[in-house]
Amino acid sequence: MLHIILNGCFGRMGQELQKEINNSEDLTVVAGIDRDRQEADFPIYQTLADATETADVVIDFSHDSSVAALVDQCVQKKLPVVVATTGLSEKTKQKMQEASRTIPIFYSANMSLGINVLIEALQKITPALEEDFDIEIVEKHHNQKKDAPSGTALLLADSINDVCQEKKDYVFGRSGKENTNPINEMGIHAVRGGTIPGEHTVIYAGNDEVIELKHTALSRGIFANGALKAGKFLKDQNPGMYSMSDLLK
Amino acid sequence: MLHIILNGCFGRMGQELQKEINNSEDLTVVAGIDRDRQEADFPIYQTLADATETADVVIDFSHDSSVAALVDQCVQKKLPVVVATTGLSEKTKQKMQEASRTIPIFYSANMSLGINVLIEALQKITPALEEDFDIEIVEKHHNQKKDAPSGTALLLADSINDVCQEKKDYVFGRSGKENTNPINEMGIHAVRGGTIPGEHTVIYAGNDEVIELKHTALSRGIFANGALKAGKFLKDQNPGMYSMSDLLK
Amino acid sequence: MLHIILNGCFGRMGQELQKEINNSEDLTVVAGIDRDRQEADFPIYQTLADATETADVVIDFSHDSSVAALVDQCVQKKLPVVVATTGLSEKTKQKMQEASRTIPIFYSANMSLGINVLIEALQKITPALEEDFDIEIVEKHHNQKKDAPSGTALLLADSINDVCQEKKDYVFGRSGKENTNPINEMGIHAVRGGTIPGEHTVIYAGNDEVIELKHTALSRGIFANGALKAGKFLKDQNPGMYSMSDLLK
Amino acid sequence: MLHIILNGCFGRMGQELQKEINNSEDLTVVAGIDRDRQEADFPIYQTLADATETADVVIDFSHDSSVAALVDQCVQKKLPVVVATTGLSEKTKQKMQEASRTIPIFYSANMSLGINVLIEALQKITPALEEDFDIEIVEKHHNQKKDAPSGTALLLADSINDVCQEKKDYVFGRSGKENTNPINEMGIHAVRGGTIPGEHTVIYAGNDEVIELKHTALSRGIFANGALKAGKFLKDQNPGMYSMSDLLK
Repeated sequence: MLHIILNGCFGRMGQELQKEINNSEDLTVVAGIDRDRQEADFPIYQTLADATETADVVIDFSHDSSVAALVDQCVQKKLPVVVATTGLSEKTKQKMQEASRTIPIFYSANMSLGINVLIEALQKITPALEEDFDIEIVEKHHNQKKDAPSGTALLLADSINDVCQEKKDYVFGRSGKENTNPINEMGIHAVRGGTIPGEHTVIYAGNDEVIELKHTALSRGIFANGALKAGKFLKDQNPGMYSMSDLLK
Repeated sequence: MLHIILNGCFGRMGQELQKEINNSEDLTVVAGIDRDRQEADFPIYQTLADATETADVVIDFSHDSSVAALVDQCVQKKLPVVVATTGLSEKTKQKMQEASRTIPIFYSANMSLGINVLIEALQKITPALEEDFDIEIVEKHHNQKKDAPSGTALLLADSINDVCQEKKDYVFGRSGKENTNPINEMGIHAVRGGTIPGEHTVIYAGNDEVIELKHTALSRGIFANGALKAGKFLKDQNPGMYSMSDLLK
Repeated sequence: MLHIILNGCFGRMGQELQKEINNSEDLTVVAGIDRDRQEADFPIYQTLADATETADVVIDFSHDSSVAALVDQCVQKKLPVVVATTGLSEKTKQKMQEASRTIPIFYSANMSLGINVLIEALQKITPALEEDFDIEIVEKHHNQKKDAPSGTALLLADSINDVCQEKKDYVFGRSGKENTNPINEMGIHAVRGGTIPGEHTVIYAGNDEVIELKHTALSRGIFANGALKAGKFLKDQNPGMYSMSDLLK
Repeated sequence: MLHIILNGCFGRMGQELQKEINNSEDLTVVAGIDRDRQEADFPIYQTLADATETADVVIDFSHDSSVAALVDQCVQKKLPVVVATTGLSEKTKQKMQEASRTIPIFYSANMSLGINVLIEALQKITPALEEDFDIEIVEKHHNQKKDAPSGTALLLADSINDVCQEKKDYVFGRSGKENTNPINEMGIHAVRGGTIPGEHTVIYAGNDEVIELKHTALSRGIFANGALKAGKFLKDQNPGMYSMSDLLK
């Protein structure tokens, strides 16, 4: 049984986590941390410092502004922590780096298992294809999403570029009569419509053959799943910084 | 047996036509028209006026500059003609309109049967979806294609708009932090890579459901196939202008 | 404002309906019917006969065994009714037919707007393709689904066959060394995995071109959406039997 | 410049090779071997033993019955050989194994670069997914293909199974009311229609996320391309058996 303290337990992702934990027999929440006060089946505290329960791991889906303090308290309590908050500042990341000398800390740019597996596959095959195949990305999201392309699409593109000898320039659409697609260009296309949770396809198009790698999210529950997998993994680790690529090894 | 005169018989599409005709038992070329002189299994002439063979239909894959004269000669010979040349000027189209009082003429913006069937489907379903579904188009072509989006993608978009109460503005890519996708916007995305002959997908994305209609060309033989189907259809028609939508009825 | 009575309000689909209604400003539940007793924001009754509230329409997601009695009570109260229950017996359907002389009744084999739009498209294009294109269906569902292929896949197949001159035989998989795919055969393939809510693709494969029509469900909320659209539509109709194809006109 | 001797130069694949070689500046055919006598731009011999030209590599697309003799002659001439013939007997394979002590021999179950890259990706990601994701394969081919599923689909399935802790049983279709999809079952679905050259999709379906890896062949030229890449690679190798996975390193 994994005993979890949830930081940001009443946020959108905190609620997803609760749902997944309730459906699982070997997971339990021993305490929640949130500024909000709502009913819950577990004790709620304003800060981790106030919590007296014994736990195996802290899972955090909150905001950059509260992560540094949380990490400090995890160090004091010698508690492993999964930081699943996105949009972290450099300062926060540096704080996590320091804390990782004392406790195990898990952090990934994307908490979905599938997206991280996709990245592993992309980095495996890109070197063999780079010379002869054009690489393009199409992503689809709901019509309320403001940023384009998605952060995940850029993460995939950067992961490809990291293993390319010839770095590729990103292009976010094409129109007109004088387009070319030189091998060092990567088109990234953002489709927006309806309530699509998220779909990312990387296309390698070569001489009479095409390879496509596609990830489809059916709900944002996948980020909760990934965080819980990370929590199980982190419980038994030595102090240090860990990410999804460690978990996938 | 359909007796065909091929105008532009040594051009890229003329050769495709020859290949398809050779594979078919009920089709035969009785004469070819081309400025080039090459070996062929049938007599070659500089202009249709020179040809003395009896034929059921002329099929033309040439250039706008030679279509008007060809149509004149078809009128004189009372020969039905399939004009499969793209990029026709208004003047040529007007000439065809006049000639269609005397002979049957077939002309479509796209000669592929499949693309025209797709358009029928799009125009059938768009009115029921227009209000609640975002509509987007993704097309894929080889990396040597200069125009983006493809003429066919624009044809599909226009065909959708023709039946929409609220006309949609076309958007050719998205980037940045402040995108919105209002219902009156249609994203058209041009993927370019390898030797892809042509793929067009229209995406209707609504509340928790997505409908996609996709056409994949495996070779440019589909335009030859469409022209030959048009030729068979045209043989028995009265004078007039015809298009793929007549053939599909 | 549409005033709704929900039959089966605490069932899985009844809860989906409540969720969608809560998100909509022009819909409200005036009463719920269910054998279960749970807390709700509206009065709950054992049968429709007990309900005294004024309503525009009854929406039913229940079980075949309770539909006939419900329809009787709708007749007595002169209430339009959307029967969204699946697996109806012939006897129940006959009862609905009789009742439709007195009240408007809505019933469709599939309540999703998208699937019904897909059927319209399939029936529009099949006659033009039937002769030259092989037709196949691939459907994907979660790994807990017991029936294969899905009822919806069979509904799509039957809808295609209804407009085919040459009826097609269904084939549910292929293996071995001596397969043929004559034009009168339709392969229907059931992929099962994970938690996929439902995806149906109809493939028309011809001479160097392929047309695909695909419907993706992102949640079962689409059946609730369809039922609510049906409710709005039914409110102003004369007595009679109605289905999604009437709504889509 | 790579100097090539083509074994089976007038066969279907031999002609594809000629076409690709003609389009490439650093490739040339110095001699062809074929029982047929046709016109060619290079000398034609009945057997390799008769050929006197200097070459860098032999590329073979023929039949199992002629491979053993060819390999013997390659050993005598100390010529590297790419065996791209499919359906080899165990006896032929053993002969190749022996010959590889003297000369470099290249052999792969599938000569397409893309399919082999796909296999690398599958074997990379399967171990991380095996426990939580159902794995299924959908392949599409033209309606004249007799074997189902395709040899390539089985190659992909075997490649996945090779790295699975729990081996999976193959299932070639599903129908009826009592299906289950236990984690140790892999559905392999053979779609047949039109002139589709070949499409293979491997689907990993998990908890609210799906990963798909897809390979599309646009023509059988991809096998010629792969063989030519193998030829370039083989030229500089020491004696031994080589396959696509060596080339991709």
